[in-house]
Amino acid sequence: MRRVPDVTAAPIRVAVLGCGTVGAAVVGALCDPAASAALAGAIGAPIELVGIAVAHADRPRPGIPSSLLVADARALIDSGPDVIVELIGPIPETLELLHAAIDQGASVVTANKALLATHLAALTSRAASRGVDLYYEAAVAGAIPIVRVLRTSLAGQHLTRVLGIVNGTTNFILTTMERERRDYEDVLAEAIARGFAEADPSADVDGHDAAQKAALLASIAFDRVVLDSDVAREGIAKVTAADLDAAGRMGFVVRLLAVAERLGPEAISVRVHPAMVPKDHPLAAVDGAANAVFVEAASGPVMLQGAGAGGSPTASAVLGDLVAAGRNRVARTCEHAPSLDGACRLVELGETTSAFYLALEVLDQPGVLAAVATVFGSNGVSIESMEQIGRAADARLVFLTHPATEAQMAATALQLDKLEAVTALGALLRVVDGPSR
Amino acid sequence: MRRVPDVTAAPIRVAVLGCGTVGAAVVGALCDPAASAALAGAIGAPIELVGIAVAHADRPRPGIPSSLLVADARALIDSGPDVIVELIGPIPETLELLHAAIDQGASVVTANKALLATHLAALTSRAASRGVDLYYEAAVAGAIPIVRVLRTSLAGQHLTRVLGIVNGTTNFILTTMERERRDYEDVLAEAIARGFAEADPSADVDGHDAAQKAALLASIAFDRVVLDSDVAREGIAKVTAADLDAAGRMGFVVRLLAVAERLGPEAISVRVHPAMVPKDHPLAAVDGAANAVFVEAASGPVMLQGAGAGGSPTASAVLGDLVAAGRNRVARTCEHAPSLDGACRLVELGETTSAFYLALEVLDQPGVLAAVATVFGSNGVSIESMEQIGRAADARLVFLTHPATEAQMAATALQLDKLEAVTALGALLRVVDGPSR
Repeated sequence: MRRVPDVTAAPIRVAVLGCGTVGAAVVGALCDPAASAALAGAIGAPIELVGIAVAHADRPRPGIPSSLLVADARALIDSGPDVIVELIGPIPETLELLHAAIDQGASVVTANKALLATHLAALTSRAASRGVDLYYEAAVAGAIPIVRVLRTSLAGQHLTRVLGIVNGTTNFILTTMERERRDYEDVLAEAIARGFAEADPSADVDGHDAAQKAALLASIAFDRVVLDSDVAREGIAKVTAADLDAAGRMGFVVRLLAVAERLGPEAISVRVHPAMVPKDHPLAAVDGAANAVFVEAASGPVMLQGAGAGGSPTASAVLGDLVAAGRNRVARTCEHAPSLDGACRLVELGETTSAFYLALEVLDQPGVLAAVATVFGSNGVSIESMEQIGRAADARLVFLTHPATEAQMAATALQLDKLEAVTALGALLRVVDGPSR
Repeated sequence: MRRVPDVTAAPIRVAVLGCGTVGAAVVGALCDPAASAALAGAIGAPIELVGIAVAHADRPRPGIPSSLLVADARALIDSGPDVIVELIGPIPETLELLHAAIDQGASVVTANKALLATHLAALTSRAASRGVDLYYEAAVAGAIPIVRVLRTSLAGQHLTRVLGIVNGTTNFILTTMERERRDYEDVLAEAIARGFAEADPSADVDGHDAAQKAALLASIAFDRVVLDSDVAREGIAKVTAADLDAAGRMGFVVRLLAVAERLGPEAISVRVHPAMVPKDHPLAAVDGAANAVFVEAASGPVMLQGAGAGGSPTASAVLGDLVAAGRNRVARTCEHAPSLDGACRLVELGETTSAFYLALEVLDQPGVLAAVATVFGSNGVSIESMEQIGRAADARLVFLTHPATEAQMAATALQLDKLEAVTALGALLRVVDGPSR
C-alpha cells in the first residue's frame, strides 16, 4: 500500500522505548528512507522518530543517529509523541511507563507478553477510556498477525478452539528430536550451543513463555481476562525420542501446544502441554522454530504460520501495529478494543477430557501389565492400545487411552507411580482431535 | 470480542444483495439472536438487517422473514443503509449497483472477485473519495483473512512474493491424483459427480478463477492495478498421475499456484500455472480443497491457510468485513484504502525465469534423446536431470531444467513439438524455490 503521503499532513511522532534486537530492527526501518516512505504511504502521513530511550544513551549504535538516543524514557513520553513503541521488556518500570504514555494520549504498541499476560485488562480499559490504541501483535507468535485476525477478521465469530505452536525453541527441539531420533537433553544442548535456546532454557522448555501467549490468545479469542497464572502448564522435558517414535507409529507427531478451548456456552479451558497431533493435521507440518496458530471457528478452521521470533519478524509485527495506530491517528479515531468482560468460567484442568498417551518405565517381569491395567481400570480409564518398547532395563510400556478426564488420568498416574513394577513415569501427552476440515 | 452493545448507539443498517449459498449463510447469522449479538458486540452497535434483494422476492426461504425480501435492489440501496453486502455475483448490473451504493454513502462489502478483478481501481477510488469503505475479504481465498493481513499487518512492508493456492477445486483434483495415483480425467469426473467441481469445470481447471484472485492479490500486495486479463494463465489439464509420481521422486508436489512476484524495484510478474513445490515447503502440506497464501516479506514468510470456498467459510469472511465496516461507521471514519497508483511495470511472462519440468511423449527408439537434447541446448536451456517413464507406446521422457526464461522454454517446446520422435508435449511445470524460512 504505497501512497505518496500528504506532505501537508502532520507527521506521526513516534517514540521507541528500548533498543535491543527488535528495537534496533524497528529503528532501522524508521531510519531507512525507503522503508520509512513505505510506512508513511501505508499510514497516509509521514513518520517522525522523535527519540529512542535506552539504558546507555552515550553508547554509539551503528546506523542510529546518536541525537535520537535519550536516557530518560519518562521525559520522552512526556514530550507528547503520538505513538509509543515499547520494546524494553519485563522490567518493573515498564507498566508505569505505559500508563503514563496512555494518560498522555499516546497510542501504545508493545511486544511485552510478560507484562500483558498479567496487565492486559488494566491497560486495555485505560487505553479505551483515554481513546487511544493498545496494539500488541508482536507479543504473540512473532510475525504471525493472529492478534489482528482475532480482533477483526474473526471478531463476532463463534470460536471453539485455538491451538497454537507459539514457542519456536520447543518446536525446534521436538521436530529435531523426531527427525534425527535424538534425545531431549542432546538436542537441547545443541539448541543452547547454537543460540536457539537460552542458557537457562526453563522459560521455553517448561512452557512459561507459551503460557503467557496462551493467556493472551485466550483473552482475545474468548473476550475474558486470562492471566498466565491461570494457565495449566506442562513442559517437554519428559518427552523422549522413543515417545516420538511410538507416536509416529500411532499416526501422530508431538508438539508443545497452547490450547484455548470453549467447553460449553460459558466455560473455557486454557492450557499448555505437549500433545499428540495427527500427522494429517496442518499443525503437524509446522517444522523447526516456526510458529503457527490454528483457529477453529463455527465456519471452519483457519491457520496462520510464520516465524515466531527473531528481530526482523518481530519488528514486522511491530511495524504493522505502528501502521494501524498511525492510520487511526490520521483519522482521529482508535480501534474498538476487546472488552474482556466476558463471564465465561475458566474450567480447572482436572475437569477437561482427552485421550492420553502415557509412557511407563517398568521392570520386565510377568504380571506387570496386569497390575498396570488394573490401575487404569480402577480409575475408569479405558485403554485403546498398548505397546512394549525395549527389553530388560530399558523396557517401557506405552499406552494410548480412550478419552478420560485429567482428574482420572492424574489419579491413574499417581497410583501407577506407586507400583513396584513401575520404575518411572514417562511422558504424558494429550491427544488432539483430527483436523475438522 | 463480545461487548454489550451500547443500546443507545444508532444501529448499523445493513442491506444484503443476493441470497444464494453465501448470502443465505450471512443472512442466517444476522437473523440468529446469538450470532447477531456477537456481531453487535464486536461492532459496538446493534445491527439492523433492513432488506435482502433477491430475484424472486415472493419465493419463501426457510428461516428468512419474508418481510425482508425485496425485488428492487436499487430501491433498497436508495433507502440509505450504512453497509451494502453484495453477494449477487457477476451480472452486468452489479457494478452500477455498487457505484450507486457508494454514491449514497454506504460502505460496501463484496465477495465478487470477477467484478473486482476488472473494476477494483474504479471502486476503490470512488469509495475513497466518498469516504466509505470497500471491503472484499471473501473475494480471495474464502475464509482466509489475507486481504486484511496484506492491507494492514503487512502494509508498509517490502513484499517480495505472494504464492497462493487459491482454487480449492484444482487443489482437490491434484492432491487426490497424487494420493490415489489416478489420472486427471478420472478425478475430475469424480469431483464433478460429488459437486466439488462445476459441470463445466473450465473456470477452475483452466485457471480463470485463480487468475482473478491472483490479480487481486497482486493489486493489494504491490499497490498497482492488475487486471485478470493481465495474468499469464495455464491450467492443470495436461498434468498426469505419472507427472505427479515423477515430481514426487524429485522431491516435489504439484500445485496450481497464483504467483505475484517482485522482479526488481519497479517490476512485477503475475501468473497462474501448475508448479513444482518442494515437499518441505509449507504449501506442499495444503491438502484437498483447502486454500493457502504464502507471503514472502523482507522480514520472513507468513502463511495463511483455511477453507477457500463454501457458504459458511465465505460468509465468515463477509462477516469479518461487516464488523470492520460497522466499527468504522460507529467511529465515523473509513479505512485507509490502497492507492493502487504504484508505477511498477508488469513483466511479460516470457521475461520471467524459473527451472522447468517438461514431460514429452516420445517414440521409444534410438536417437530420440539426442534429438531432444539438441533442441534444449540450441535454445540455451540446460538440463539438470532426465528420466524415462514407461516403454513402447507409453514411453515418456521427463526433464528437469536449470533456470531459463519462459521465452527460451517456449521456443524449446515449440521446436520439440515439431520433432518426429515427439508424439505429444505433456505438462510444463515451473519449479518454485524452496521455503525461505
